[in-house]
Order: sequence, then structure tokens, then C-alpha cells
Amino acid sequence: MFRKNAVNRDIPDRIDNRDLHPFIGAFKTDPQGKRKYAPKMSVSKPKSNKLCKTISEALEKAQIRDGMTISFHHHLREGDAVVNMVVEEIAKMKIKNITLFPTALFSVHEKLVDYIKSGVINSIEGSLNGPIGKFVSLGNMKSTCVLRSHGGRVRAIEAGDVKIDIAFIASPTADEFGNCSGLIGKSACGPLAYADIDSRYAEHVIVITDNLVKYPLVPHSIPSTRVDSIVNVDSIGDPTLIVTGTMKITKSPTRLLIAKYSVNFLDKIGYIKDGMNFQTGAGGISLAVTKFMADKMREKKVKAKYINGGITKYAVDMLKEGLTEFLIDIQSFDLEAIRSMNEDKKHFECSVDEYANYNSKGCLVNKLDVGFLGATEVDVDFNVNVNTHSDGFLLHGIGGHQDVAAGSDITMITIPAYRNRLPIIMDSVTTVTTPGETVDVIITEMGIAINPLRTDIIDKAKNIKSIPIMTLQDMKLKIEKITGKMEKPKKKDRIVALIEYRDGTIIDTVKEVSL
Amino acid sequence: MFRKNAVNRDIPDRIDNRDLHPFIGAFKTDPQGKRKYAPKMSVSKPKSNKLCKTISEALEKAQIRDGMTISFHHHLREGDAVVNMVVEEIAKMKIKNITLFPTALFSVHEKLVDYIKSGVINSIEGSLNGPIGKFVSLGNMKSTCVLRSHGGRVRAIEAGDVKIDIAFIASPTADEFGNCSGLIGKSACGPLAYADIDSRYAEHVIVITDNLVKYPLVPHSIPSTRVDSIVNVDSIGDPTLIVTGTMKITKSPTRLLIAKYSVNFLDKIGYIKDGMNFQTGAGGISLAVTKFMADKMREKKVKAKYINGGITKYAVDMLKEGLTEFLIDIQSFDLEAIRSMNEDKKHFECSVDEYANYNSKGCLVNKLDVGFLGATEVDVDFNVNVNTHSDGFLLHGIGGHQDVAAGSDITMITIPAYRNRLPIIMDSVTTVTTPGETVDVIITEMGIAINPLRTDIIDKAKNIKSIPIMTLQDMKLKIEKITGKMEKPKKKDRIVALIEYRDGTIIDTVKEVSL
Repeated sequence: MFRKNAVNRDIPDRIDNRDLHPFIGAFKTDPQGKRKYAPKMSVSKPKSNKLCKTISEALEKAQIRDGMTISFHHHLREGDAVVNMVVEEIAKMKIKNITLFPTALFSVHEKLVDYIKSGVINSIEGSLNGPIGKFVSLGNMKSTCVLRSHGGRVRAIEAGDVKIDIAFIASPTADEFGNCSGLIGKSACGPLAYADIDSRYAEHVIVITDNLVKYPLVPHSIPSTRVDSIVNVDSIGDPTLIVTGTMKITKSPTRLLIAKYSVNFLDKIGYIKDGMNFQTGAGGISLAVTKFMADKMREKKVKAKYINGGITKYAVDMLKEGLTEFLIDIQSFDLEAIRSMNEDKKHFECSVDEYANYNSKGCLVNKLDVGFLGATEVDVDFNVNVNTHSDGFLLHGIGGHQDVAAGSDITMITIPAYRNRLPIIMDSVTTVTTPGETVDVIITEMGIAINPLRTDIIDKAKNIKSIPIMTLQDMKLKIEKITGKMEKPKKKDRIVALIEYRDGTIIDTVKEVSL
Repeated sequence: MFRKNAVNRDIPDRIDNRDLHPFIGAFKTDPQGKRKYAPKMSVSKPKSNKLCKTISEALEKAQIRDGMTISFHHHLREGDAVVNMVVEEIAKMKIKNITLFPTALFSVHEKLVDYIKSGVINSIEGSLNGPIGKFVSLGNMKSTCVLRSHGGRVRAIEAGDVKIDIAFIASPTADEFGNCSGLIGKSACGPLAYADIDSRYAEHVIVITDNLVKYPLVPHSIPSTRVDSIVNVDSIGDPTLIVTGTMKITKSPTRLLIAKYSVNFLDKIGYIKDGMNFQTGAGGISLAVTKFMADKMREKKVKAKYINGGITKYAVDMLKEGLTEFLIDIQSFDLEAIRSMNEDKKHFECSVDEYANYNSKGCLVNKLDVGFLGATEVDVDFNVNVNTHSDGFLLHGIGGHQDVAAGSDITMITIPAYRNRLPIIMDSVTTVTTPGETVDVIITEMGIAINPLRTDIIDKAKNIKSIPIMTLQDMKLKIEKITGKMEKPKKKDRIVALIEYRDGTIIDTVKEVSL
């Protein structure tokens, strides 16, 4: 049985033994249940030794067995060596049917394909960036993948939707008692914000580090009270791929124009003022947006209260210049961001629970004035796709997209009007990641379209002359004059992945691609 | 039915509808159950308003009703105005049968006696310092009080032994979204470590502040994700009683001698060395111990890794001088400690969960080299009483006593041999707070007694000539030559309070005093 959800997608009642709840609206779900705190009570004894010589010793101590769910975080991004290292050990132990529950997988994890084929990995719940996503899109996994936003993943763990048997925490520095920090060490990555929730709820927690220091490691992002074992290995990853030197701003005139439109539009409608806050990321347009925001704020002599999200040198420069009072950091993208977190008392780490958990009493995204976000596609209902490409392949995770869109006072989607001659605005996106009701403004090089729900913004934008303002329908037609209309990708009936909304309902499904 | 526990006390099977488990040994309890995460899932919506104009508005929002359990922390100590303020409002609302679950009550809370008499308060679980303890000792409360250590209280909440309906968090500074900090504001108290667990597990959390600031308050000890309401009042307490200016070291030659013996003894047995750590407090002898430790370390040119516990100017001075690498702070006792926490990156707050929770995967006390602790009485089995005076009155809480004793490599009890001509060493303490198996050395002005279980320390102390070393039995006899033997206080049969061990078992009971 299928039911239509609030963004008009057909959602099956049940899949892989799980009852599905169709998406009903961004703030409609009101859970009546309790949080489920899964881990067993343990006993804290003096002089107990948590150090294990090898990963296999730690796996044996954790009593790994067939069918378990194991989790990872992705602060090491494309530099991560830990996921592959652990799965390889598990395979050697002849363990089968593992559910992988990473925050995200990247190209570096392509070799997991072999372990999926051999039955070591049975199921994946997490963001799929690149090759594993492609593999899944082609129907190569028996079970259905589940994608969640940053906040949605925290919610799912707290609600007991996912029970983590063993959490593996790649930690750039750790002490022998299990305190973890990403701030220092040769593999430094900054915050360990994604791993916080895993450390709280996993039955068993194994820390893997390549910089073991003497207790107490302070400050730490994850405390000893949650850690069962520590393994010291030669290397947890490739530092050059964990963080970049300094990220470069786009040189594309189109993308620079989009960034300029965004900042000028915000200025015209009165959002650039003292005490404001915003989130940007590290994508091509984002860095330019951050730089242009700084320029505009300097020009207007205003100061932000804080900038949050993925932090780069451009945000750090604003902190140093006094253009923002604080930086609130979920992940550090470059060396400057890490250096700043170590040295500047106004630059703080924030757990994902605090950042984006819908089922909390108030998370940071709710206080956002402006959220700058990207997209692979947008449709005339302002629904946004960040997961699949227009050919139907699942190639990206959700990240904080749903969370930031839902929380921000104004959500700005900054995207080029077309990519490889494919239009980005369509009648209906291939996959709905983020519902249109939470998306306010679409900005392309063609101009700006405002969500009709936001009559307040439409009102404020009435007298703007310097930026073309149009309906999304008109923008779509303008783009199609250049690109032509796009063909829908051919899809099979089989659902290969579920797109969960941040409240645990299903906002869309991803179907197998037909080549 | 009564059963004898491992320290030979008679423990009833059941009291006030609760099944009691007798104490079986400091590290014998191995819980098979799960942690219980009680609070309901809530929903985090943008633009929701958490500010309440009055405490009664917040109480109504929390749907306060008869029989609820409400919690408080005691970081404001004798300066606290919040407990009285809240109970007064509850009384006005005609609510009855409340269970009070504070971390500790002080003399300032004496007026609660009226609310106990009138039935507003039915039961108290928490440390009782002074007048309320006296009132309870005389059999004036119908229900049985329960005393727990810092770590034991965290454990009890996690285990679901106590379910907090409403937690009240006195916060010297808070923002409108509920982020809390004790570091700044006219009522600054330093850490909010005691309140951390309440904020995590209470069904409803109300923050009461007298310094409301604009979001985001960073750094914060308690995040917005756990807070339902915020009330801004004129004053949460008397700053002069929340922290002192600078605490003064004892001038008593006896107490100075005890401190000197302690430090010299540690030196002789090889504990004063690079990388060591220790905990002291703010009591009369403790400050002198801290100062003498500094002198000894300076003389020996050694540096501690950290000092933890209740922090004072004397520990801050050691940090500034480089005699310790870090300070780890559960509570700040004076203005210097608060100033240091604000300014020094090597001075950290630590939650009580991280500090002392037995049912965690490894708490800080387990890594302690030396714990300096006090006592009201000690017995020949090295059992320690910190709760009752020799007249039987319950006048003090447990604090971290059981936790530090259990965790420290060497637990040193520093006490004068007698007080008001009453000997402090006896055949059997009036109340067992901390079991002798976790207590290593007793130090009075008479000399030092080493627990026979610690053959390693006895061995190391063999050649000490400069400090009198004797058995505890001999020390007892020496003291009794001065004071005479002590009469046991007259007690009735009724149990007025339970002394819980940190693992949730019952180590002793306190009986009604017969005048």
C-alpha cells in the first residue's frame, strides 16, 4: 500500500519490516513517546585498562557478531581511513550482515562495495556521497538505504529508531581513558560534533586514534565516561584530505553573480544589521557569499552576533576583524578554522544535538536569521533536491539541509540556473529532500524568486530595482529557453533508499535507476 | 526484615514502598539493566517563546501538581534564594506532597520547615546541611530522607530510581533560549556541574536567572536543547554568600600540623612527583594541604598534571605558577576561582557525571592519585562518617566523599584527633558514609594510621621516622587517654534517613535522635 505525503510523493506503508510514516508538514509531528536511552549501565572501576593493542582485540572485547549495527562519523571526510580499516577487520573475523550507520560515506569508501557483495555489509543508513550511492542507485543492495539529516540522525538515535551496537570514533587525539578531541594531532579535524550522539547512545564505544596522549586530555569533545576501548593506530587518515589548506573562492562570473545577488537582496530587505546571524558552508558559492557578506557588513559598519555551520578561513577572518562576535562550529573545513578553534575563545564547537535536533527543547537552527543552502534541483513548489542528480543517481547526503531550511527565518537557495545544460528548476524535483514550505528564496544568475508563502519578504522586496525578481515559474521558463525542457530519468519500481525528513517521517523515496 | 550489609549495618528490606539493596562492597554491584531516559520527546520550533514573566507562570506551563518531584542544584550555597522562592510559589498554588530533590540544602533553607509542616513538602532526597537535617533527625518528617553522593545522585537519575518532574536551574546568566552559565553575572558561581544531570533527565526544565542576555550565551554549561522555560527575576541570591572573597587558611597549630603530616607522608612514600594529580576541598585543613603541596612541589621542582574538585585561590595560584598543568572544576569556592575559569584556558568545568558516576564507562575520580577528605568520625575498620555528629544529628551531606574515596589511588582522611573533647576515632562510627575498604590513611595530629589492606603503602612507609605511624587501634587509645571513651548517642528505632552508597545500595541508616 502506498499513501501520498504532504509533498505529493507515494510512500509505501512498510519496507524492510519497518512501518513508514509519510511526511505531514515541517512542524506537524509531535511525538508522544519517550526518548530511549539504549546503552547498558556499566561500572566505572579504578585502574581498569581500556587500551586495546589492535582493532580486532577491541572488536572481540565488544563481542561483535552477525547482524550488529556499527556507526562512524565523517569529520575526516575524504581523508578517512577508519571505516575501511574496521570493516576489513570485521570481514577477517567472518562476521556477516552488518548494518553500517555512518554519518556519511565518501569516495574513499568505495572499497566497501566488495564487502557489500560478500555479505559483510547488509544495509547502510547514512549519507551516501559518490560511488556507494551510485552502487546503491543501480539496485545492488538487497536492503533499502535510509538517508537522514544531521538533526534527523540524532532524533532517530534518541527515539530508538536505530540502536547502535558499536560506535567507532575516529579521534585525532585521545587519552588512555577515552577522552577525545579533534583539535590537535597530525590528523586534526576540529570538532567531533557528529560523533557526540553516537558516544551517548551506543552500547559499546571504541575510540580509534593516531595520537594517544596522557590523561586528562582537556578540552575534550567526548568524555571518558562514554568510552569502552581505545586503539592507537599508525594513521586514522590522510591529513591533506581531512582538511584543505585554504579553500578558494569560485572564479566563475555566474556563481559570483549569484553570491552578489544574495547579499544585495538580503541588504535591501533589511536583514544585514547589527546582531544578525547566518549560516554558510564551504561550497563554491558559499565562500563567495561569506566574503561578500563581510564586505557588505564592513561597508554598513554592522556586526553579526554569530556565524555557524561549516567554518572556513573566510568566517575566521570575519571573527578576527570583529565582523562577528562568535563562530559556532559543527565542522571545520580548513586549517585556519582549526587553528582558530584552538586559539580563539570566541570560536566554539557545537554538538549536532544542540545544532539541529527537532525533538529537543530548542536547537540552534531555530535561531538562525539566514541560512544559505545549495541544491541539485528545485521545483516550482520550492521543494529542493540535494540527494539525486537529474539522471536519478543518489550521489549526495542531506547534511543539515532540512534542518537549516526549517529553522532559518529566511532560507536562501543559491544555485546556477543550469549545470551541463540541464535546467535546475523543474515542475517536480527528482527527489524531495527539503519541503518547499521551509524554503523562502531561490537565487540564480537569472535573478530571485520568492516563495509566495512569504508575503512579508515579497512586501519588503517590492521596490528592489537592481536585482531581477520573478516568479519561480517565470524563472523556469527563462532557463528552459536556454536549456530546453528536461527528460525525467527512467526509474524502476524498486525503492533503493528512503529520504527521511528530520522528524522521522518519509518525505520521498529513491528508486532504482534504469540504464 | 533486616539484613546485615558488608559494613555490618542492619538494613531493612523495604522502606516507603522501596525495596532496599544492602551494600555489598565498593565495586561489587554490576547492574544488568539499561539506563532510563525519562523525558518526553519534545518539538523544537522556530520563534517559540520560552520566557515566562513569573515563576508561577512557569509552574503553570510545567503543569505542576500534587506529588511531583522537583530538583535544584546548590552552586549558590548559603546565598541561594531560588529554592525558597520556588517552594513559596508552589505553596501559594496550594500544591501538596512535593518531593524535594536538591543536590544539597543549607541553613538558608531553614524556612522550608514551615512547608514541611504544612504538607507542601512531603519528602526530601538530597544532602541536608544544618537546620533541615536537625529537623529530620528529630523525627519530624513522615517519609524517609535519602542521602546520595554526587556521583550516586547522577547514577540514581540515570537508573530511573528518581524521576524528576520539574528541574529548577538557578543560573547566574542565561539567554532567552535557555543556554545557562555560572561564569558571569552579579550572582556568578562558576560551574553549573551539579545541574547538568537534572537538565538532561527532568521532564520539564525551568531556568531562573537574574542576568538575562541575548542569544547565544557562549560558552554555556547547559544548552537550550534541554530547557523549557526561562524566568528573569531580580535576584537569585546573595553574591556575598554564593562565593567568598578569598578563603583563609586555618591558623590552628593542630590543623596545620595535620596538613604538614599529610604532605610529608605523601612525599616520603613517593607520591609527590611529576604528572601527579590530587583533589582537595575548601575545608579548614584542605586549604593548608593545598598550600603545603605547592611548597613541597616547588621545593622538589615537580609539576602536577591536574588538581580537581572544589577550586579555590590556592589551586588557582598553583596553576598561575605552573605547579599544575590544569584545574578541573566541579565547584568554585571563591572569586579568584571564577575569575580564573573565565580567563585561563587551562581551567575547565567538569560535569558530575564525568567526575564521579559509578555507572559510567570511567569517571574522573578513578584517575585520582590522591584524594584528601574530611570526616566527622572514623572507626577502627576505617569506615568514615561525614553525615552525623556524635550526638546522632544528621547535619551534613555526602558530597563527593564516597566517590573520591572509591576512586583515588590513596585516600587520605585528615582530621583533628578530637573536637570539643569528643574523640573522632571509635569502635564503630555512628553512621557509615564511606566504607573502610576505600579509605587508606587516617591523619590526625597524633600521627598516621594506614589501612592494613594497603600493604603496599605500609611497605613504602616503613622507614619514615619524622611522622608517628601507628595502628588505628593505637591511635584510638592515645586519643581516649585525653578525651575518655565516648557514649553512643541514644537513638529511637525509627529510620529517618537512608545513606545510599554510590552504587545505589544502602550502606547505613540514620535513626531518630532521642533527646
